[in-house]
Amino acid sequence: MIIDCHGHYTTAPKELEEWRNRQIAGLKDPARAPKASELRISDEELRESIETNQLKKMRERGSDLTIFSPRASFMAHHIGDFNTSAAWAAICNELCARVAGLFPDHFIGAAMLPQSPGVDPRTSIPELEKCVRQYGFVAINLNPDPSGGHWREPPLSDRHWYPIYEKMVELDVPAMIHVSTSCNACFHTTGAHYLNADTTAFMQCLTADLFKDFPTLRFVIPHGGGAVPYHWGRFRGLAQELKKPLLNDHLLHNIFFDTCVYHQPGIDLLTRVIPVDNILFASEMIGAVRGIDPETGFHYDDTRRYIEAAPGLSAADRARICEGNARRVYPRLDAALKARGR
Amino acid sequence: MIIDCHGHYTTAPKELEEWRNRQIAGLKDPARAPKASELRISDEELRESIETNQLKKMRERGSDLTIFSPRASFMAHHIGDFNTSAAWAAICNELCARVAGLFPDHFIGAAMLPQSPGVDPRTSIPELEKCVRQYGFVAINLNPDPSGGHWREPPLSDRHWYPIYEKMVELDVPAMIHVSTSCNACFHTTGAHYLNADTTAFMQCLTADLFKDFPTLRFVIPHGGGAVPYHWGRFRGLAQELKKPLLNDHLLHNIFFDTCVYHQPGIDLLTRVIPVDNILFASEMIGAVRGIDPETGFHYDDTRRYIEAAPGLSAADRARICEGNARRVYPRLDAALKARGR
Repeated sequence: MIIDCHGHYTTAPKELEEWRNRQIAGLKDPARAPKASELRISDEELRESIETNQLKKMRERGSDLTIFSPRASFMAHHIGDFNTSAAWAAICNELCARVAGLFPDHFIGAAMLPQSPGVDPRTSIPELEKCVRQYGFVAINLNPDPSGGHWREPPLSDRHWYPIYEKMVELDVPAMIHVSTSCNACFHTTGAHYLNADTTAFMQCLTADLFKDFPTLRFVIPHGGGAVPYHWGRFRGLAQELKKPLLNDHLLHNIFFDTCVYHQPGIDLLTRVIPVDNILFASEMIGAVRGIDPETGFHYDDTRRYIEAAPGLSAADRARICEGNARRVYPRLDAALKARGR
Repeated sequence: MIIDCHGHYTTAPKELEEWRNRQIAGLKDPARAPKASELRISDEELRESIETNQLKKMRERGSDLTIFSPRASFMAHHIGDFNTSAAWAAICNELCARVAGLFPDHFIGAAMLPQSPGVDPRTSIPELEKCVRQYGFVAINLNPDPSGGHWREPPLSDRHWYPIYEKMVELDVPAMIHVSTSCNACFHTTGAHYLNADTTAFMQCLTADLFKDFPTLRFVIPHGGGAVPYHWGRFRGLAQELKKPLLNDHLLHNIFFDTCVYHQPGIDLLTRVIPVDNILFASEMIGAVRGIDPETGFHYDDTRRYIEAAPGLSAADRARICEGNARRVYPRLDAALKARGR
């Protein structure tokens, strides 16, 4: 079984974006603000948006199940205030829940949180609980920079974030650390901000002792860990200089990297440097890079090919990367699968 | 001949830091502000600080010549105003010029600029010209984020920076794109801010057409290019999506990566993915990562070992990485070497 731990609903029907545009317009002119109930998308529309896109590609590429969350770049937590994000997150999460309900063999949800710059993360807990308890979601996406490229919140190791971590531990769900659109002109969203955030999050954990306070807390760092595996020697050396334990002991019980690295040499490095138990199969398909690589003739984001071709991985290693690790890191996913006899 | 294109004067006598501390204190209390002439460091002190550190290691590791600039993390352009940076840059550059004068076979200068947040980069030109014309420096370090982790200047592709580029082209000197200390608590200086800046700078160039305006402008992106080579497929795919030419045509006539990647798998990836002509040997020794790697028994920053061991490089490739490319990218270095019969 192949579990893709990183999928976003990037192909939602256009009504969703139209609703969001009206919501944004309503920030200046409250008369234009839409109600949640004004968004109407039928099951048929949802089904089509998935069957002709994600599910089609999953079938072509041989993956079985995707952990599915709202479109990352559309979270845009920097827009409006808490109420703006709360209404938007509720709508986006509900759509993912409906997709998971329509395709229970192929999709299971992960929650976007209603974060907002400068707002206590505790305010995200009701939405988080609803998604896990009511919708059966198995993870959350946590944005370390709701300002959208200005980085004004405290580091992930700060007590500011602890209420979220306490709830994650209680519910036994991991967080993918995932930023959203950059509104800082210096940072291209998918070419700089995403990768920078991955590196930044890892280093925030490295310099701190967060996992002493939360030994069972689990973070998935997407996009192959940003710059981290490529600079693994640098990070090992920095940990040493800071008198931290070896990275395997200090961070790798709690931090995992996905395989959203869009060429063979990158995946070869990832699988050479990072222990197999810390690598989770993922593609973020129909995401940042949708084209066909002229050097291979296949889609850049068809990452399963790279895992298959990576030297030095045994069949058992591949099974852990593609399934076993996800069942361990996302226990609610494992439970849901077992409940369905899988 | 082995040319290390990335060395900073991290071992300057302590009088330098003391002067800087007085300068910073003087920002609040002008009575405490020191004059430049109050910094007195003898040739003997300079000689000792180099012979027992950089030069000792260069001899041990077999490198011959280092392109030497003021300590990157001490540039701290965010402190004070233009006058603060101007006085500080002049002092730091002069020390590097004196080191190059004392050890002309082993060191040649690269200039720190007196950048300051929100200040027109044109103000850096007099110091730049002095360093190149008077001190014989062969390059500059350009800080794309003088705010120190808040990223408030325009991207490198913006006309804001063009006066610097015009002068670089006129003088035929490349710029290493190098940030300084982060004063944003989210970003660890050497573990996140440096690598993020490398990735950010590359993506700023990718989305723009800067090198159409300046076909001979040359940027060296340090620290192995941040996350870029590891995600080369992502960047190729993003360029494709943005209807840009292939990266080799779009950027690789103008952008070069150094080898400050502190483990074998990272250098193996760099040399597998990036054309040999775009890789410049460097170690940034006695810099961010000074320890000994317990996995190898050698210093993390002894990067020449990784170049020697990288598979798929011929002797001719290694010669280009270690010498030929530097002579091409830094023509004033080549001229200085030839003038000395090297």
